[in-house]
Amino acid sequence: MTKFDEATQAIRVDESTYDVCLDPGYSIGGPLNGGYLMAVILRAVVDASPHEHPVTTSAQFLRAPQAGPARVRLEQIKTGRTATMTRATLIQGDTSFIETLVTTATLAEVAPDWTDGPSAAMPPVEDCVKLPDPKPESNMTFNAQIDMAFDPPTIGWLDGNPTGRPEGRAYFRMAEPQDPDPYVLALAVDALPPVVFSAGARGWAPTVDLTWHLRALPAPGWLTLLGSGRMISDGWFDEEVEVWDSAGRLVAQSRQLARVGRG
Amino acid sequence: MTKFDEATQAIRVDESTYDVCLDPGYSIGGPLNGGYLMAVILRAVVDASPHEHPVTTSAQFLRAPQAGPARVRLEQIKTGRTATMTRATLIQGDTSFIETLVTTATLAEVAPDWTDGPSAAMPPVEDCVKLPDPKPESNMTFNAQIDMAFDPPTIGWLDGNPTGRPEGRAYFRMAEPQDPDPYVLALAVDALPPVVFSAGARGWAPTVDLTWHLRALPAPGWLTLLGSGRMISDGWFDEEVEVWDSAGRLVAQSRQLARVGRG
Repeated sequence: MTKFDEATQAIRVDESTYDVCLDPGYSIGGPLNGGYLMAVILRAVVDASPHEHPVTTSAQFLRAPQAGPARVRLEQIKTGRTATMTRATLIQGDTSFIETLVTTATLAEVAPDWTDGPSAAMPPVEDCVKLPDPKPESNMTFNAQIDMAFDPPTIGWLDGNPTGRPEGRAYFRMAEPQDPDPYVLALAVDALPPVVFSAGARGWAPTVDLTWHLRALPAPGWLTLLGSGRMISDGWFDEEVEVWDSAGRLVAQSRQLARVGRG
Repeated sequence: MTKFDEATQAIRVDESTYDVCLDPGYSIGGPLNGGYLMAVILRAVVDASPHEHPVTTSAQFLRAPQAGPARVRLEQIKTGRTATMTRATLIQGDTSFIETLVTTATLAEVAPDWTDGPSAAMPPVEDCVKLPDPKPESNMTFNAQIDMAFDPPTIGWLDGNPTGRPEGRAYFRMAEPQDPDPYVLALAVDALPPVVFSAGARGWAPTVDLTWHLRALPAPGWLTLLGSGRMISDGWFDEEVEVWDSAGRLVAQSRQLARVGRG
């Protein structure tokens, strides 16, 4: 069991309740990473489902939970031959922190009938660059869990050279060797710095709603994250992330609507 | 009040219950159009919210409801200065048909800080074509409510000439004169024929999950719907729709995950 598997464990209390323990190692400067929190919720949902894979997850982020014990409350809404629909809520004390609607199904290992290419090209991984280590006082513990290599222009904002459009592209894997699986993908779709940084914005950009689809089971090796956005307006922005696996297959698609940070 | 306004009315029973009446005029061959059903739900959500606009809607389609009386059951999950999060369920009898998570907020009429162009070009509306009238026995009453003019290649599948990739593009407006508003946009994001028809598939393609974001309030006039998909695999496909208004502004973005029809 990897550290990530352990940090996302969900222990069944009864058919509608799972105990979880939110790990302080996934902090992004205070709040815990949203993808990590989705992975925790999905462990419970899949354990309780007759189906194996979380094919769609829609999450509303209400509040930022603290590290420590929490619960996932499940309500199975419908189950059928192809898919099961579940409402799952992350709770601490009596308070809800994340509300989700999840569809589980069992994906087969088949070739796609039709597929488009990646939405952007990536340089080879050896030409990509890592982020500088965060300052210890920044409480960015999340960065140590993952290994990311960025397409250089898309982190130009670090040196005051944003590209001027919302984007971010990187290779991604867990720092501890682990083959990617649907829970790693939940982390991956929310792992890029907010795409608005590349358009000149700064500051924590809270996600309001993130929906992602698992399209195929990822092959071992690096994942490629292609992030972009279509509009920044009135304090809101969209962020789309495509995740491709090492075999060149689209394995996940996400879109989030988030608030632009206040700097 | 237009026919569409009437068909989507939600009458408050108490703070968590609204009565609605599902109109047989929105049938797509038996089932009612999913965008129409979302519009009905959103009327109730917005009426009960301190905020004016449904900025994000994630809907899970569990079952196809019948035309006739139904209820929307609301649970307000969180309300704050910027946004209100609500769970809303469409119910007939004791059965849930659609589960949604909706974030309402109040959008200002401002110019975007940054915006990308449309993802595809459209010919002028006079070079676009309408679908043939449906056969009376097909029970496609929905088509009479709306006025759509298609980019010709994207309905080549009608004559046995699909383009070979999932896509669909059309100008859209209500048949009865009505300025577009967020409820019309809920209809618009699910109004195109399934994009997989253009890739050679046929038959009713049931939506499993549809998430859409209202990005701005639309100007009067035609809307432009740009539909596409990234992958068809293992019986699942994604459909993205961008909606642009007559002023050239991105007003809505949607993505649905759906099942390929067995037609």
